[in-house]
Amino acid sequence: MSQPSGPPPSGAESPDPLPSWADGDVKTAIRSYVARVTTPDGPDFIPPPERIAVFDNDGTLWPENPIPFQAAFIKDRLKEGIKEHPGWLLEPAVQSALKMDIPALVADGHRGLVRLVALTHAGMTTEAFTDRVNRWMHTARHPRWDRPYDACVFQPMLELLRYLRASGFKTFIVSGGGADFIRVWSERVYGIPPEQVVGSHGQVTFEVRDGEATLHKSMDGIFVDDKEGKPVGIHQFIGRRPVLAFGNSDGDKAMLEYTTLGNPHPALGLILHHTDGEREYAYDAEPKSTGKLVEALAEAPERGWVVVDMARDWDTVLIPEPTTDSV
Amino acid sequence: MSQPSGPPPSGAESPDPLPSWADGDVKTAIRSYVARVTTPDGPDFIPPPERIAVFDNDGTLWPENPIPFQAAFIKDRLKEGIKEHPGWLLEPAVQSALKMDIPALVADGHRGLVRLVALTHAGMTTEAFTDRVNRWMHTARHPRWDRPYDACVFQPMLELLRYLRASGFKTFIVSGGGADFIRVWSERVYGIPPEQVVGSHGQVTFEVRDGEATLHKSMDGIFVDDKEGKPVGIHQFIGRRPVLAFGNSDGDKAMLEYTTLGNPHPALGLILHHTDGEREYAYDAEPKSTGKLVEALAEAPERGWVVVDMARDWDTVLIPEPTTDSV
Repeated sequence: MSQPSGPPPSGAESPDPLPSWADGDVKTAIRSYVARVTTPDGPDFIPPPERIAVFDNDGTLWPENPIPFQAAFIKDRLKEGIKEHPGWLLEPAVQSALKMDIPALVADGHRGLVRLVALTHAGMTTEAFTDRVNRWMHTARHPRWDRPYDACVFQPMLELLRYLRASGFKTFIVSGGGADFIRVWSERVYGIPPEQVVGSHGQVTFEVRDGEATLHKSMDGIFVDDKEGKPVGIHQFIGRRPVLAFGNSDGDKAMLEYTTLGNPHPALGLILHHTDGEREYAYDAEPKSTGKLVEALAEAPERGWVVVDMARDWDTVLIPEPTTDSV
Repeated sequence: MSQPSGPPPSGAESPDPLPSWADGDVKTAIRSYVARVTTPDGPDFIPPPERIAVFDNDGTLWPENPIPFQAAFIKDRLKEGIKEHPGWLLEPAVQSALKMDIPALVADGHRGLVRLVALTHAGMTTEAFTDRVNRWMHTARHPRWDRPYDACVFQPMLELLRYLRASGFKTFIVSGGGADFIRVWSERVYGIPPEQVVGSHGQVTFEVRDGEATLHKSMDGIFVDDKEGKPVGIHQFIGRRPVLAFGNSDGDKAMLEYTTLGNPHPALGLILHHTDGEREYAYDAEPKSTGKLVEALAEAPERGWVVVDMARDWDTVLIPEPTTDSV
């Protein structure tokens, strides 16, 4: 996926790069930030290699209700697996999953969720895991919109990703979800290649057998890319401080802080506030599953973070209904 | 750093993209591989996003003698640090470093070396570490060539990196050395941005104090990106199997295997054999410091890996002498 770094849009005569965003302060803040840091010879110019933009995934690029989409994937996989491995039913994480007790699964930095991934997928080759995710994406459907999960993505965010890339930014996902899960479809769905996906992950083990080199997923050394883990993951994987960060929950607060506090470049922090129960879901302090948003919202005014009010700032929410099975 | 993915060089009328490589089988093998996988509609065509090329650093992109350059950096730092912290002298790794006993430091997957990095740099902010590396690069000089270390890089490898990028490849470093060390100068010296550097690393800890967000280096959770760690690091950081790998030691064998064995795409493995004691160093089975090359060399014919004989295949070794202090 190429990341063109051409000149910034040349102004009023260009078509609106964010047509799904309502005119107003939020859209203006985004466009004026981009114009400011991409104006050559301007005082706030950021050289293209340093235009690093990081995006949370669940609740930011796609919804996270009624349960996070990877949890739906794991639940479907659990149901199959329990037939072969009834012992799984003794695992607290499995019990939480079957009760759909998402808060229990995501407590303590998603540890239960990560445990489920490990349980259901340890020992598989990375290729077999990829195949399984692809198969699920082709068959499973979101219960509310009756579409494949990868067709339930936010149209305004796709426009923003494209606009930033056309303005010389390099776009990354920094997610509490599993890197191996997201990387299967991120390039096709978001235009973000696997090597620009930072996520939770376990170790893999390397083996050569019968002239084939393979990697097997294991349960060791799990890294949880959430909360303070996000700046840690950004440093380890990207190695430089982002200038733009977009999240939607307290799990993104540390990432927003790392991006905006003490950055030598002008930086932009954005929070998506889920205010639209009609077109999507409305939640903040008491989410049904993940996405609690209290501290980051309270900190936003002082830090200058832009709060996107979904009901007010988005004219469209999801991408258009796909016309065929494959999106 | 943009990664242009234009059409492949159009053939005989183009200037030679590898002028420092001697005409012969090795150069032909590289050029014909690139031509083969970049020919649209050809049977071996690889789509640009999947053209992932990985390079070892020490002994592949620059020398690793008389000691690996990062070891020289750490030794200089140790000498300063011991004045303040005489207790360091009790550490086995410090004793090995002061004796220049590099084999002891790199035994067991570079653990001693990584321990020294942790010892000398734990608690520092990542920014302070970057400043220290930059200062050292401006002041220290290689004992044999009397140049800054970052001016001791292999001219043929710079040409190869550029040629691959011009042919739509994305180039990565996959090194047993420290990611934080390499990322400081990799973009300037190799055109490889920090986010395309996979290396050994410890954890960092996140903190907000006085309105500034910082990351501090710690001694926890050290990952050693060597031997079997290389395919593991490639999977975690890049998330797809490379199609081209270039190394020079048994530490690169697993990376070469992962790249070439069972890859659905045509893949190219390359090994630099240090055969030139006159212009650089000559070593394989019994290196002075790092870079033992026995198993990978023995495996090369069976695997079809191309062995680059430095004395025979390189017309030039180092880049031209820099004319000013800054390279």
